[in-house]
Amino acid sequence: MAMTREVFVVGVGYTKIDRHFWKGDRELFAEAAWKAIEDSGNVLPKAIVVGNMTSSSLSEQDNFGALVADYAGLSGRPAFKVEAACGSGGAAFYAAYALVASGLVDVCLAGGVEKLTEQPTRRVTRALAYAAEEEYEVYYGASFTSLNALIMRLYMEKFGVTREEMSEWPVLMHENGSQNPYAQLRFKITKDQVANSVIIADPIRLLDASPIGDGAAAVMIASEEVARKITDTPVKVVGLGLATDNMYIASREDLTVLKATRKACGDALKMAKIELRNIDVAEVHDAFSIVGVLDIEDLGFAEKGMGAKLLAEGRFRIGDKPVINPSGGLKSRGHPVGATGIYQIAEITMQLRGDFPGLKVNGAEIGLAQNVGGVGNTVSVVILRR
Amino acid sequence: MAMTREVFVVGVGYTKIDRHFWKGDRELFAEAAWKAIEDSGNVLPKAIVVGNMTSSSLSEQDNFGALVADYAGLSGRPAFKVEAACGSGGAAFYAAYALVASGLVDVCLAGGVEKLTEQPTRRVTRALAYAAEEEYEVYYGASFTSLNALIMRLYMEKFGVTREEMSEWPVLMHENGSQNPYAQLRFKITKDQVANSVIIADPIRLLDASPIGDGAAAVMIASEEVARKITDTPVKVVGLGLATDNMYIASREDLTVLKATRKACGDALKMAKIELRNIDVAEVHDAFSIVGVLDIEDLGFAEKGMGAKLLAEGRFRIGDKPVINPSGGLKSRGHPVGATGIYQIAEITMQLRGDFPGLKVNGAEIGLAQNVGGVGNTVSVVILRR
Repeated sequence: MAMTREVFVVGVGYTKIDRHFWKGDRELFAEAAWKAIEDSGNVLPKAIVVGNMTSSSLSEQDNFGALVADYAGLSGRPAFKVEAACGSGGAAFYAAYALVASGLVDVCLAGGVEKLTEQPTRRVTRALAYAAEEEYEVYYGASFTSLNALIMRLYMEKFGVTREEMSEWPVLMHENGSQNPYAQLRFKITKDQVANSVIIADPIRLLDASPIGDGAAAVMIASEEVARKITDTPVKVVGLGLATDNMYIASREDLTVLKATRKACGDALKMAKIELRNIDVAEVHDAFSIVGVLDIEDLGFAEKGMGAKLLAEGRFRIGDKPVINPSGGLKSRGHPVGATGIYQIAEITMQLRGDFPGLKVNGAEIGLAQNVGGVGNTVSVVILRR
Repeated sequence: MAMTREVFVVGVGYTKIDRHFWKGDRELFAEAAWKAIEDSGNVLPKAIVVGNMTSSSLSEQDNFGALVADYAGLSGRPAFKVEAACGSGGAAFYAAYALVASGLVDVCLAGGVEKLTEQPTRRVTRALAYAAEEEYEVYYGASFTSLNALIMRLYMEKFGVTREEMSEWPVLMHENGSQNPYAQLRFKITKDQVANSVIIADPIRLLDASPIGDGAAAVMIASEEVARKITDTPVKVVGLGLATDNMYIASREDLTVLKATRKACGDALKMAKIELRNIDVAEVHDAFSIVGVLDIEDLGFAEKGMGAKLLAEGRFRIGDKPVINPSGGLKSRGHPVGATGIYQIAEITMQLRGDFPGLKVNGAEIGLAQNVGGVGNTVSVVILRR
C-alpha cells in the first residue's frame, strides 16, 4: 500500500551508554530528547513516543509517556509508551512514523530509554526474562540467556560452526566500538578472551553477551514540508517493517531461523522499492553473538549457516557492502533495551549524513536498522536513505 | 492539520467484566479480538495494538503485543503494546488510528486487556499506584485513591458541593449499568448506601470507586475502502485528541481542573469540525465519583463546580443531550484499566449503530469517548459519527 505522505529524520540525540549512577530514566530521556531537539534546529516535537521495557518492573513507574514528557519540559503534548521488550525502540519508531505519516502531527519525537543499573542483578535478570513466554518458558526456569543458548548450541551443531568462528562476532564488535565515543565497552578483545570468558549459559560465554547499561536515544521525525525548513540534510524513511513470531520458541518450525526478521525485512525492502544489495550499512541487533549471526542470515546478507563463516573470512567490515554494526553493536556500544532500536536509527542517520562520531562508512547512501524484541518475537526493520 | 485519509470503526468485541478465575490476560484478549473480527465479517487485522498497564507488574510478561497476537492465532503481524496507565486503551486507539490513516495497514485491531484479580490486593493496589509519580508521590506513601481523595476534598470545599450531591454520580452509574449485560456490578444503589459505605481514603468511600475486574475489549478499524466492503454501518472516527499534564499533581496550578481533558477535547472537536453541543452520547472516565464530575466539567458539559449539581438536577440521563455513561461507566460497567478506553469506543460505536445491548440512546448520531490515565496525566478523546 502506498504511504500517504513522506517522513524524514531531522535530528538525533543520545547519551553515552554507561552505569549512570546519578541519572534515572527520566533524566536520561530528557538529555537525549533535548540533544535531538537541538540537532533539529530547536523545533519542538508535537508528540512523543517512548520505547521502554522495564519502567514498571524496575522503576515501578507507569504512565511513562506522560512522565518523560513532563520531566523533559514537554508536558501537554500527546505522549505514550510503546513496549515490545528489547524491540521497544523500533516499535516506538514505527508508531511515531505513523503519527507523522497520518497527518496527526507534523513533528514527532521517537525516543527510547532504559535504566538497568543500581538494581540487584537477580532482579534485572528476572525483569529481562519478561521478554520471553512467562507461562511456558520462564515459569520453568528458563532465563533469557538460556533460551538463546539453546539456539546457539543447535546452530553450531547443525551447521558445523566452531567456537572460534562464533567468536569473530564479539571481536569485530569491540574493534568497531573501540572507536565509538558513546559506546559502553570501548576496548578490543581477542578470540581467546571470548573462548576463555566465563560461561553464562553454555555455550554462551560472558563475552558473547551484550552488557547491562543505562542509556537514552531520540530521533526527531517530520513531514517533508517541515523537514525542508529545518535541515539541509534530511534523511528519508523509505522502508519500514514490523513483524512478530510465536512466543513459545518450542512451537517454531526451525529454531535457527528468526522468521520475524525475514518478514520485517521483506516488508521494508518492498516499501523502499530497493534490493538488499543496495544497503551500504546496517545496524543489527546482537544481544548475543548467536543473535548477530542469525540477524545477518535472516536479513539476507548471508546464506543460512554461513553468517559466522563469512565474518571469519573478513566480510562486513569497512570497505565491504554492507558494513555491519560500525557502532560496535549491542555487544560494544551497549544495549539499553528499549533505547537500542532508537540508537540504531540515530546511528544510521548519522552515517548517511556523514557525521557519525565513530567508525564512518564513507559515501553511504542507504542504511538499515534491525531491532529485535525477545527471542525474535518482535522485529522491526527501518530503511533510511539520504 | 488535515488527516491524510479517513478511518472507520468496522467491528467491536469484548468480554463481560468480572473476576475471570479461569482466564488470564491472553485468553481474555483472544476472546475479545475474535468477537471483534467476527463483528467485522471475519476480516483479519493487518496489525495489532494492545493497550495494557500491568502485564509487567502483575503478570511478569513483556513483549506483550507479540504474546497476545500469538495467543489469538494472529502471530506474524505487526503488534505492540501501548502503555499510558488507565488511559492505555485510548492511547492504543490513537496509535492504531495512525497506523491506518498513514497507509501502513488498511485494517487494524485496537485492543485493550487487563487481568487484575487472582493477585493479593496489596500487590494490585501497589501496581495501580504506578500510574502516579513514583519519586514525588508514591514513594511518600500516596496511593492512587488518596491522590484522588485530595482532589475530591478540595473540590467539595471550593465549590460547596455536598456528600449527597457527589453521591448522585455512583447512583446514576449503577442505575445505567444495571441494564448492561456485560457490566461488572449490575445492581442499583442508593445515596444512603454510598454515604454509609466504608471510607477508602477520606472523603472517597467504597461506592465512589470503580471496582477491580478483569476484561478485554477490541475494535477493528479500517480505511474507507475496506470499511465499505465490510459493513453497511461503518462508524467514522471524526475527531481525536491525546494530551498529557504534569505528573506531580502538586505542581499544577489548579487541582480541580484536568487540563489534559480540556486540551484533548478541544483538539478532537477541532478535528471533527463540530461543537460540543452536537454530542448525543458520551462515555467518560469515572475511576472515582470525583473524576466523573471533573470529566463532565472539563469536557465542557458543565461549568466548573456545577457537574454534581447538574446531575442532582436530573441532567445527563436518557432524553437529555448528552447522555453520559449509558454503559454504567467505570463505576458499574467496570474498569479493567488498559481495556477501559476500548470498551468506551466499542460502546459509543454500538450506540451509533443502534445495537448497544444495554441502555440505548435512540437516534444518536455523534458520540464521544474520554479515557484518563493517572490523575488526569494522560487523556484521550475520540469522537465518532455514524
